[in-house]
Amino acid sequence: MHAIVIDKPGGPEALSWREVPDPRPGPGEVLVDVTATAVNRADVLQRRGLYPPPPGASPYPGLECSGVVAGVGPDVEGVAVGDRVCALLSGGGYAEKVAVPWQQVMRVPEGVGLAEAAGLPEVACTVWSNVFMTGRLRKGETLLVHGGAGGVGTMAVQLAKAFGSRVVVTAGSAEKISLCVELGADEGINYRTEDFAEKVRADVILDIVGGKYLPGNVRALKTGGRLVVIGMQGGAKGELDLGTLLAKRASVHGTTLRARPVDEKGVIVRGVVENVWPLVDAGVIRPVIHTRVPMSEAAEAHRLLESGEHIGKILLVS
Amino acid sequence: MHAIVIDKPGGPEALSWREVPDPRPGPGEVLVDVTATAVNRADVLQRRGLYPPPPGASPYPGLECSGVVAGVGPDVEGVAVGDRVCALLSGGGYAEKVAVPWQQVMRVPEGVGLAEAAGLPEVACTVWSNVFMTGRLRKGETLLVHGGAGGVGTMAVQLAKAFGSRVVVTAGSAEKISLCVELGADEGINYRTEDFAEKVRADVILDIVGGKYLPGNVRALKTGGRLVVIGMQGGAKGELDLGTLLAKRASVHGTTLRARPVDEKGVIVRGVVENVWPLVDAGVIRPVIHTRVPMSEAAEAHRLLESGEHIGKILLVS
Repeated sequence: MHAIVIDKPGGPEALSWREVPDPRPGPGEVLVDVTATAVNRADVLQRRGLYPPPPGASPYPGLECSGVVAGVGPDVEGVAVGDRVCALLSGGGYAEKVAVPWQQVMRVPEGVGLAEAAGLPEVACTVWSNVFMTGRLRKGETLLVHGGAGGVGTMAVQLAKAFGSRVVVTAGSAEKISLCVELGADEGINYRTEDFAEKVRADVILDIVGGKYLPGNVRALKTGGRLVVIGMQGGAKGELDLGTLLAKRASVHGTTLRARPVDEKGVIVRGVVENVWPLVDAGVIRPVIHTRVPMSEAAEAHRLLESGEHIGKILLVS
Repeated sequence: MHAIVIDKPGGPEALSWREVPDPRPGPGEVLVDVTATAVNRADVLQRRGLYPPPPGASPYPGLECSGVVAGVGPDVEGVAVGDRVCALLSGGGYAEKVAVPWQQVMRVPEGVGLAEAAGLPEVACTVWSNVFMTGRLRKGETLLVHGGAGGVGTMAVQLAKAFGSRVVVTAGSAEKISLCVELGADEGINYRTEDFAEKVRADVILDIVGGKYLPGNVRALKTGGRLVVIGMQGGAKGELDLGTLLAKRASVHGTTLRARPVDEKGVIVRGVVENVWPLVDAGVIRPVIHTRVPMSEAAEAHRLLESGEHIGKILLVS
């Protein structure tokens, strides 16, 4: 098969489309003929050599895919050859075939094209696990989403609104804020011109910025609030004011999806299929796709992601 | 009645035993004839003017007491005149009488003297709410307790051992570590000579130090670990390494007990009566009392607490 190989960490040009050995499904694994994958910020970090694949994962980038099941190893449950699926991966989505534990495989929601479905697993699992499982967002509470117009952001806005919360987003342009409001956001804050910590008090904050936003995020929490940090685009370290944290009886959570053991991913995936997919089936939630790029031109897709000008997901189709 | 009055914030001499008006039980409140109260670090902060009583609370210090019910207001459930009780207070324990919401009143566990029971509510509610409710410590997990020989520490060690966890403590002397080991601790670290972050990896950390220990505490967490900060004896601010927090999928929680609404305190108190009191009844957990001081000599008790030489609770008896 062909896959995107990273010979040497570096810029987008480090990504080359090459012949590599086919993967084989091991015990508990499903082999997927990949229709599409999607670009995530973690792929950019991996390309730069800053986010090596966890032990046992494919060396190729790609944390999610869609396609058709082409084979199953022993001890696989609930998945059969010929099924149209999408899946959460530990890596290897930028390829014609990928092997994945059956616990991470999901049906394609109704009304969603097979390629389009490649853009759902990461954002759905990220939002479900962080906002609802870790952050325990409840009906009537306020969610603040940083980067509301990104892939994770657009899913967070839609899902939190569908579950009856108030949603405030930050984004870097009026156009991006408009999209978030169209998707249901109650309020948008342009982080280039406004200080979010002056404008909003939230029960749950979903943050991709990290260190730079830590003091503002803690200030923006309500009593009992939960700050969930899933990215560090603004640095890894920040000052934590425990005086405020204690007075608010608040918490700061850090998580990543990729490094979790298969069992934990399975719990998240089941939660998504039970709670998120019915809303996608019903058309309440829609995948927000910015564009599709041929998988062999992954470098182009990375340049686009790094420009920050996309809204929603960038798909790589084979 | 008499109470300890703080005329002007300051040293121990700011505490004076004086005639003041009797409290009256309002709706939902119980009037307790106080047998004993106990000294908490928060009382010292209140004396210094750094921790004002929350709105509606008694102006006198004292966050817990034991005694006999002398009256009940309207809408009180499950408590009657003549009951021997102990109670979690928002203040006012350093007095001959105190009014307290019925939700914060508990029976005196079997085998515990009435005065001795005054030393249980704060430590039991603090440990139950932080280690078990917020920290979700599970059987087989490791708990690190900073200040293991203090009032909260000695309860945390005993309770965590009773629920099947491994317990590591830090303390400032070999004598204090010995006490903790007697109470069941598996390991003691002398913080004056050793770096706890080099020596232990814990699922849950109960911390009273705050800012100064934040980097070490995050290092000492296991994957999925929970750091619960309940005190800031080492400063309010510290550097949080989100890179480590994310990689470990860990969390930092700040809480205080005193400022919680009555309903939340009621949930904690019920949890204590259901889960902790049976262990005290059975003699598995014992209150660790350092000494008893007459309530009118509260200044002396504060000096002792601030010396850091006590082991367990300091009682004030009327």
